[in-house]
Amino acid sequence: MPGSTRPAVISADAEAGNRSERKHRAILDAATEVFLRSGYLGTNMDEIAALSAVSKQTVYKHFESKEALFVEIVTRMTGDAGDAVHNKMPRFDEGGDLSEYLVSYAHWQLTIVLTPRIMQLRRLVIGEVSRFPELAKVLYELGPKRAIGILAAMIESLADRGLLAVRDPLMAASHFNWLVMSEALNRAMLLGDQAIPKPAELRKHAEDGVRVFLAAYGRK
Amino acid sequence: MPGSTRPAVISADAEAGNRSERKHRAILDAATEVFLRSGYLGTNMDEIAALSAVSKQTVYKHFESKEALFVEIVTRMTGDAGDAVHNKMPRFDEGGDLSEYLVSYAHWQLTIVLTPRIMQLRRLVIGEVSRFPELAKVLYELGPKRAIGILAAMIESLADRGLLAVRDPLMAASHFNWLVMSEALNRAMLLGDQAIPKPAELRKHAEDGVRVFLAAYGRK
Repeated sequence: MPGSTRPAVISADAEAGNRSERKHRAILDAATEVFLRSGYLGTNMDEIAALSAVSKQTVYKHFESKEALFVEIVTRMTGDAGDAVHNKMPRFDEGGDLSEYLVSYAHWQLTIVLTPRIMQLRRLVIGEVSRFPELAKVLYELGPKRAIGILAAMIESLADRGLLAVRDPLMAASHFNWLVMSEALNRAMLLGDQAIPKPAELRKHAEDGVRVFLAAYGRK
Repeated sequence: MPGSTRPAVISADAEAGNRSERKHRAILDAATEVFLRSGYLGTNMDEIAALSAVSKQTVYKHFESKEALFVEIVTRMTGDAGDAVHNKMPRFDEGGDLSEYLVSYAHWQLTIVLTPRIMQLRRLVIGEVSRFPELAKVLYELGPKRAIGILAAMIESLADRGLLAVRDPLMAASHFNWLVMSEALNRAMLLGDQAIPKPAELRKHAEDGVRVFLAAYGRK
């Protein structure tokens, strides 16, 4: 940097790196707003550039296409939600209340997933499945498929410890997931963000779903 | 009709009525194709008029707006699917196999709902929830809400006859519905029509869902 009193080239490189990283995040944040507001077809790179206060060339330097940018948004939002669900849950402690543990898990998952932004994202990619199947595929892989895979590992481990009676952990995980999520998710999909249940109602969905799950998969 | 040898005015009126009814159906059929192919925003009345071989004025004589036309399509497709599910199922006969009866019900419902056209319609209205909330509301009322309501009545009647142990028939119906439908529906929503399971796989979804349902709600 001409005129800078900083001594090392590394420092200038690091600063450029940070600046690039900040721009990358600014573009992603701006693009998320625009996509969720205007839909996939209704979004253009000019608007994203304007909202993130960079040139359109800079947007294209960071993301080669509108599709690449949207795929990164789906990846980030869905991945962050999945991480939030799974990193927070501790392992079940022997001697604890298994039902209460599963209700906490279910309630936490509902709380993370049933937000206006995740619902808007899911509606958006579902609406574009025929034109842009790759977008929804990313959401499927990082969203429900990943969530059910992690649930299956948790259920299998509980079964190995003799705490559940499960022959097919993946199917049991799918039943757990949808017993807990579906009623609220279906309403939110079709009736809009204002149909997302309040926290106490989410807790009840979790309790009712877990009760049915344990009737089928609990130790008799 | 000038020059006609038919004697009565009534006959001419009836013929005009039939012609009007035929046009009404032709417009609906053409509009269904165009909406499912081009989406809600991408559809215009000119294309529908051309495909149904009537004038645009005739389209507007039958349907006052694009929205009214689409609402009738959602009503017709969702209502027909619901009718097909519920009118076909006989009442459960005492002494029959309850599990087999419920599996048949579930399998039939999956067969009717998990079709490319119903999946395309559902994706379309979900994608338009923020712009046109009324479209999805019609699908919600005539689709899942109606299906779960009818299931609840069936479940309550089985409970009254001592064949199920159910405190909240509406919740039990929701659990039944989503245990059976969700895994396949979620995949079809996000992975497209080619992800709709084959008949044998639908039957397995029905069997697995009913097994869990009966573990929770069957007589012990």
